Amino acid sequence: MREMSLNNELTFNLPPKPLLIVLSGPSGVGKDAVLSRMRELRYPLEFITTMTTRPRRASERDHIDYHFVSPAKFQEMIKRNELLEWANVYGNWYGVPREPIKQALERGQDTMVKVDVQGAATLKKLVPQAVFIFLMPPSLEELMLRLKLRHTESSFDLALRTKTAAEEIKKLPFFDYVVYSRRDEIDRAVADIMAIITAEKCRVKPREVSL
Amino acid sequence: MREMSLNNELTFNLPPKPLLIVLSGPSGVGKDAVLSRMRELRYPLEFITTMTTRPRRASERDHIDYHFVSPAKFQEMIKRNELLEWANVYGNWYGVPREPIKQALERGQDTMVKVDVQGAATLKKLVPQAVFIFLMPPSLEELMLRLKLRHTESSFDLALRTKTAAEEIKKLPFFDYVVYSRRDEIDRAVADIMAIITAEKCRVKPREVSL
Repeated sequence: MREMSLNNELTFNLPPKPLLIVLSGPSGVGKDAVLSRMRELRYPLEFITTMTTRPRRASERDHIDYHFVSPAKFQEMIKRNELLEWANVYGNWYGVPREPIKQALERGQDTMVKVDVQGAATLKKLVPQAVFIFLMPPSLEELMLRLKLRHTESSFDLALRTKTAAEEIKKLPFFDYVVYSRRDEIDRAVADIMAIITAEKCRVKPREVSL
Repeated sequence: MREMSLNNELTFNLPPKPLLIVLSGPSGVGKDAVLSRMRELRYPLEFITTMTTRPRRASERDHIDYHFVSPAKFQEMIKRNELLEWANVYGNWYGVPREPIKQALERGQDTMVKVDVQGAATLKKLVPQAVFIFLMPPSLEELMLRLKLRHTESSFDLALRTKTAAEEIKKLPFFDYVVYSRRDEIDRAVADIMAIITAEKCRVKPREVSL
């Protein structure tokens, strides 16, 4: 409950607590496309850039899409306790830096971080008061099609990713919200996510995120 | 959790459960203005018309703003168990008819009902899985000003309503969401309410309303 006094001036117009929004979903579902659209719209969120050891794709920009780092640098960050969570996904390391999230929340800034489903499960234990959104493909066929169109996976990888996606979808009950990501309907998914953030900010009992 | 099968066709695209949205807030806060704007926007909700024994104001239409009924008719409805809840507010009776809500929900239709704070508290016990939204004035001064502008209350009523509003605001913790209703910002409040409905429809664990 927001603090309030009733001596004729309602003083509960205090700024609501900042939210930590965790956006997740199977590989290929369109997490990056959604994030990129939200950045374009200048939606007032701090978008956390995560770390990876995988090679940069032609379409990706260092320090915006990911911080691309060497495996040695990544191991060093783990040792220094600079990562909130990390995981090996399809042979590459992915990690969420702790300090940028902490600083954004301390500034009262709503913050969004994109992680794979395994990472989201870890974050759920560390920061259960975050808002967990699962980006869901309309079908596994469509997910496979999208991975094919990306031209970055071998057919072996494709089969593996589809199998993994089916497993990941079983983790849905650990999430708060499910948003459908249909091709050519990015704006629909973005609108749903923005509605979720607006609604969460109207909650009478706000979430209290602490890192 | 929505039912799902994973035999390569994700069949959790089932229609989500219909919502029952309870819109409440102090007298004069602008509940009717918000509802009327949502009707204008043809927002796909079933708006339940409630019953009252108070005289119709010049601006009000029978069977749209309220069903205006006699005290005898109202008592008859109570006896026949046709009202979900009812209360005496400032000397007049107000009641929520059961059947229209039941039928709308059975058709799978999201449904909104407007009630005073006392009525919302009763509904919270009867249908705890409804979505409870509290429409909040920015200050008690502004609420008084609005009641004055309405020209329907005597100065005695005004003082009483302001005192009651302060009591009603203390019931905020029983609500799910709080939406601020500022003058000339009806559309902002309407947008917040629509975001809340969208977000509720994205919940992984849907609310199961039963009457």
